[in-house]
Amino acid sequence: MSHHNGKLISIEGGEGAGKTTVLNAVRAFFEQRGLTVVSTREPGGTPVGERIRELLLAPGNSICAEAELLLMFASRTQLASELIKPELAKGHIVLTDRFTDASFAYQGGGRGIAEADIAELERIYVGFKTDLTLLLDIGVEQGLARAHARGQGLDRIEREHTEFFLNVRAAYLRKAAQEPDRIRVIDASQPADGVVRQVLEVLEQWMAQ
Amino acid sequence: MSHHNGKLISIEGGEGAGKTTVLNAVRAFFEQRGLTVVSTREPGGTPVGERIRELLLAPGNSICAEAELLLMFASRTQLASELIKPELAKGHIVLTDRFTDASFAYQGGGRGIAEADIAELERIYVGFKTDLTLLLDIGVEQGLARAHARGQGLDRIEREHTEFFLNVRAAYLRKAAQEPDRIRVIDASQPADGVVRQVLEVLEQWMAQ
Repeated sequence: MSHHNGKLISIEGGEGAGKTTVLNAVRAFFEQRGLTVVSTREPGGTPVGERIRELLLAPGNSICAEAELLLMFASRTQLASELIKPELAKGHIVLTDRFTDASFAYQGGGRGIAEADIAELERIYVGFKTDLTLLLDIGVEQGLARAHARGQGLDRIEREHTEFFLNVRAAYLRKAAQEPDRIRVIDASQPADGVVRQVLEVLEQWMAQ
Repeated sequence: MSHHNGKLISIEGGEGAGKTTVLNAVRAFFEQRGLTVVSTREPGGTPVGERIRELLLAPGNSICAEAELLLMFASRTQLASELIKPELAKGHIVLTDRFTDASFAYQGGGRGIAEADIAELERIYVGFKTDLTLLLDIGVEQGLARAHARGQGLDRIEREHTEFFLNVRAAYLRKAAQEPDRIRVIDASQPADGVVRQVLEVLEQWMAQ
């Protein structure tokens, strides 16, 4: 399925899509099969990446769309060189809470940066894609209601208006339609046990390929 | 000399080249002619840019060459949109301690990133060059001796080995040779009053163009 020994799997989705539940289920799925799973997240996952994450998410920070994109890719290229490539070379499963597809959705669909410019950064500063991406798709209103119900403060990006999230969702779905083998859409509007069941079916089928 | 109403001028040079003295002389030159001068620096110059500067220069941080480059351009695109473009539109002189030429020297010559990749980031995320760059050129050993004599701690980049700085200097000079009208080389090995005299001659001639 890829040129690596290991596999890179990302979980993508908007606010309130239930990523944490799915991350735990995916990790358990592979660990039960005796595989080593290394979990990480974006932006972040390395010491400097976590500092970049703080900059990106602090509600008071004024950051233009282009700077946001370049900060995301600075965190991503550091994560790729410091963690993802070495772990894949060891044959491990790297499971990440978001990866490059999120930039196509948030900085592309959400902020309006051209898809070709994001693809160019991906080509030069990352050089690979995920082996499998699980896109947790949920209606914007339902997702935002869940995110608000969590009762935590909202970060700089979560504070965007509804139209932003509608564009993010559309960009995610467009990307999934372009690469249906790599990106599998999960119906995240279901109750959690239904979401997990669908995820496990996708993983079983993907492993059998 | 440019498509802006105002003018963007950068001071470039390696460690110990005497940038601060020259920045003060250039500012005074334009202010004496009744022009408004806005001073800034790279990386930094905006609230988020100064946070990026801290990340880049903290001696303990592990940052790969590609992440360093993208962080520099994140700071730069924010500075361009938040400060440089609005100030140039007002007809002001923007005087900056380093700009994009520094990425060609440090991340290009020093870290070995391809010039074409840096030029691509410049084209997409900056979109303009300085109107005038004063390159303070000094031998690496003499510059490092001066930098050490300042007695301040050295930052993450100042701690590099001599070969790194030799490559930085060569990249600066190569860029100046490619664009001799925009980038003027100043002999910074002279005593300070000689350096300032040469800078003022360059400015007089440039203004008369």
